[in-house]
Amino acid sequence: MSPLVTLLTDFGYRDSYVAEMKAVLLSAVPSVQLVDISHEVPPGDVLAAQYILARTWARFPPGSVHLAVVDPGVGTDRRAIAVYSGGHYFVGPDNGLFTPVLDGARAVELSIPRTAAPTFHGRDVFAPAASLLIGGKPLEQLGAPVQDPIRLSLPQPVLEGGRVVGSVIYVDRFGTLVTNIGRDLSEGRTAVEIRGIRIPIRRTFGDVEPGELVAFVGSGGTVEIAVRDGAAAAKLGAGVGEPVRC
Amino acid sequence: MSPLVTLLTDFGYRDSYVAEMKAVLLSAVPSVQLVDISHEVPPGDVLAAQYILARTWARFPPGSVHLAVVDPGVGTDRRAIAVYSGGHYFVGPDNGLFTPVLDGARAVELSIPRTAAPTFHGRDVFAPAASLLIGGKPLEQLGAPVQDPIRLSLPQPVLEGGRVVGSVIYVDRFGTLVTNIGRDLSEGRTAVEIRGIRIPIRRTFGDVEPGELVAFVGSGGTVEIAVRDGAAAAKLGAGVGEPVRC
Amino acid sequence: MSPLVTLLTDFGYRDSYVAEMKAVLLSAVPSVQLVDISHEVPPGDVLAAQYILARTWARFPPGSVHLAVVDPGVGTDRRAIAVYSGGHYFVGPDNGLFTPVLDGARAVELSIPRTAAPTFHGRDVFAPAASLLIGGKPLEQLGAPVQDPIRLSLPQPVLEGGRVVGSVIYVDRFGTLVTNIGRDLSEGRTAVEIRGIRIPIRRTFGDVEPGELVAFVGSGGTVEIAVRDGAAAAKLGAGVGEPVRC
Repeated sequence: MSPLVTLLTDFGYRDSYVAEMKAVLLSAVPSVQLVDISHEVPPGDVLAAQYILARTWARFPPGSVHLAVVDPGVGTDRRAIAVYSGGHYFVGPDNGLFTPVLDGARAVELSIPRTAAPTFHGRDVFAPAASLLIGGKPLEQLGAPVQDPIRLSLPQPVLEGGRVVGSVIYVDRFGTLVTNIGRDLSEGRTAVEIRGIRIPIRRTFGDVEPGELVAFVGSGGTVEIAVRDGAAAAKLGAGVGEPVRC
Repeated sequence: MSPLVTLLTDFGYRDSYVAEMKAVLLSAVPSVQLVDISHEVPPGDVLAAQYILARTWARFPPGSVHLAVVDPGVGTDRRAIAVYSGGHYFVGPDNGLFTPVLDGARAVELSIPRTAAPTFHGRDVFAPAASLLIGGKPLEQLGAPVQDPIRLSLPQPVLEGGRVVGSVIYVDRFGTLVTNIGRDLSEGRTAVEIRGIRIPIRRTFGDVEPGELVAFVGSGGTVEIAVRDGAAAAKLGAGVGEPVRC
Repeated sequence: MSPLVTLLTDFGYRDSYVAEMKAVLLSAVPSVQLVDISHEVPPGDVLAAQYILARTWARFPPGSVHLAVVDPGVGTDRRAIAVYSGGHYFVGPDNGLFTPVLDGARAVELSIPRTAAPTFHGRDVFAPAASLLIGGKPLEQLGAPVQDPIRLSLPQPVLEGGRVVGSVIYVDRFGTLVTNIGRDLSEGRTAVEIRGIRIPIRRTFGDVEPGELVAFVGSGGTVEIAVRDGAAAAKLGAGVGEPVRC
């Protein structure tokens, strides 16, 4: 089993939190390889974390452990879980973050040590559980089975009179608007519409002039709306939830 | 000895500075494992760095080398030091950053190579010294003993007529206010007071409604003041130094 | 050959992009050592990336592969290249980013797989090419030779009537202005002039009082203009391109 652990949190890069989690992992398994997915998930934004995780996890080697902690309910009675799905492990709060991998998954509930800080299960519950998994402990020995992990789905596009009506589900660092309209749904369409503006579907940024709006099937497999050398989110005044038609 | 080096600086993530330090370490000891603690310490804020380091270092495996460079006096006559304490090594400027580990420590003064850039001892003095330590060189061979390393203490809470009077010593990425009031001092208290506002002490964020203020003993072992799904620093207009009573 | 890959992009730390590239590398070569140079290059700023890369690459062990993706022309007909120079490998877009290492270099053109996302060659073209190089594949087997890779040079200082006239080529996280005036050109000069203000050349920040402007030969080997415990860029209202005389 590959001793690789990825980390995805909303803890940011300023504070000690991520390093404290890494220290726990390295102290338990000195040979562990740690890879940051992101720590700049908007605070508490479980759906943004879900989108990032969904794009990423399957590209890592089988047997990887994905430690994902965007956990606004930390310390309450929300469950802590470990999940096995598609040859990978996932450890974090049971708040819907792992929805995209739950079909056909095995999940167990982690117990919360009495000494765990009620505000930092990342360090005191999830990192220790990940350490056990990379140390070779079977998932089933980490806790009792969970049959009904929480599901929290990103909105899905619908068909309305021959048109696809989707929405923006993520905005990236470039201000590019990522929609939930998949490649198949966009096939044969030549433009998308957002905030009353019609934007041509092309292949890539460079197919339009600098400063112009462009849509394309992005690297995550869904339609994205961008501005060449600019930020579509700012130009359109649009963010997550904004309807998009094509 | 574990070839693990942590890095804690105020160099940020934009520029080449951190990578230049890592390149020095990797060129000297290719098998070294590098872990970022943080590079977003507010520029020159030695006390913030001290707080972050104090929370973190002991969780790493014994023998780790902690390279901590928040160094507004770089290139002046402030000393460069390496310290051994509690089974760990610490390398950086002698400006108080290592205060929490100085009791019972052994410290030596690093010499400054003539070729060292006067503005970048992180790369030209501290990373080479850390490389020697992880290469197995004894601390004492790195320089002459230092008997009186600089101490710079975070403010301590005091008792005034039965009340504990402490202060905010750190603000994290969530806008949570971390105080210097330890778990023991807060025992039996049911609320804290800051800027004339009384805030109940609970276990965790989730014990209050979204948007409400809450205090709890945080994951660093002292009282913290937070807003559930929000930022206490902004809501209270409070930052480091703000008095807190309980 | 050392299985070390550095990454330099403008992808930021928020999104999944960097992790997707790392996953490709780790899946191909599980033992690869990954080092971030920076992912906060200003979006599309090829010259800033060039400056950062130029400062950094030669400090890494020979045989390192430097994956540098600041690529506003992604998906257009700009070429994708791999370069061998000075004992190191470089992989990225042919847009001038590698100018400082092109003299005496061998370069080949990478082919673009039909399945590559037109907006994410970092993941689908460059990371796979880097994987082949660290796996031991000779550069020449990655593609046909390129004789004329794009060159894009940072501005050079000129001599005007005995004075050196250079300019700001980079602004770092501290707001320090990095110029293109090398150590040799500044020798014997006692001050620089920027925006009509004369600033003394000293050794380091600490040679002036807090809040004062100071110039010195910086850690990259050229003159820098800084404010002790402050930001010269903000104080002077100056950025990249601003003329500097000495």
